Amino acid sequence: MSDEKAITPLEVRVGNRLKVLRRTVGTAESCTGGLIAHLLTEVAGSSAYMFGGVVAYANSVKEQVLGVPAAMLIQHGAVSEQVAIAMAEGARRALRVDYAISVTGVAGPGGGTPEKPVGLVYIAVATPSGTFPAKYNWNSTDRSANKVKSAEAALSLLLERLG
Amino acid sequence: MSDEKAITPLEVRVGNRLKVLRRTVGTAESCTGGLIAHLLTEVAGSSAYMFGGVVAYANSVKEQVLGVPAAMLIQHGAVSEQVAIAMAEGARRALRVDYAISVTGVAGPGGGTPEKPVGLVYIAVATPSGTFPAKYNWNSTDRSANKVKSAEAALSLLLERLG
Repeated sequence: MSDEKAITPLEVRVGNRLKVLRRTVGTAESCTGGLIAHLLTEVAGSSAYMFGGVVAYANSVKEQVLGVPAAMLIQHGAVSEQVAIAMAEGARRALRVDYAISVTGVAGPGGGTPEKPVGLVYIAVATPSGTFPAKYNWNSTDRSANKVKSAEAALSLLLERLG
Repeated sequence: MSDEKAITPLEVRVGNRLKVLRRTVGTAESCTGGLIAHLLTEVAGSSAYMFGGVVAYANSVKEQVLGVPAAMLIQHGAVSEQVAIAMAEGARRALRVDYAISVTGVAGPGGGTPEKPVGLVYIAVATPSGTFPAKYNWNSTDRSANKVKSAEAALSLLLERLG
């Protein structure tokens, strides 16, 4: 088992668990910009459990496609635990999937503030039994690396929830 | 100019044109699974013109999020020019963007038929002045390579339309 963990990509392990459980997954991505969906769909046969995703880069897409309340975006900002939760729950509804993972953060290299620096990321996993948020700070202004780290963290959190 | 073409990634050239034109873009991806959105959002500052995307892997997502008619999916199949057009136009509406690019195809390695072999891909670009479809056959069962070729073809078609 530890060997399998070490060498098998996260997206393959997620897919194997979803197939065993006969459950489906979807994504709601802001700063990762589609990378998580891309990774999940690199796996042959993933169409059996990966139904789709929403890349919600603009706030208007978060509102209109995922149903994130405009007032929440104003009060807490797009990069917040509240919005991550609303995105994941919105994706679970809109895509009609069992599990949805969301990511919202500041990928950089620009766009950071003292309160919300580049590298700050909120992730949420919406499941049939509740929604579970997490916060990370990659302490880096490398846009591409922040996307990869965030995608891997999101897939890891989903894998934990799949048991 | 030919030097710039040779060395600058497509997603950067697309972004530069969109910034000059002050226009926005979105994506509707089936077989590319989020790769086009991922490429577009690798560019720093892309949030100025890239509003978002829909990864419509399952037919239910094509119908519910992009508004592709169920009857069209039954009559022509998900991998068809008609569905590519409907996905691009649906994304343009749902994401409220000026330009939307869609891809639907058979990435493989399985899932091919004599009429719709692995590597067959339909792409469409929806613009303010009309929607333009294209058909490709990569003649390959390499899933990952088919995704990359399709994403590059879609970005090239968009770039042509951006003039």
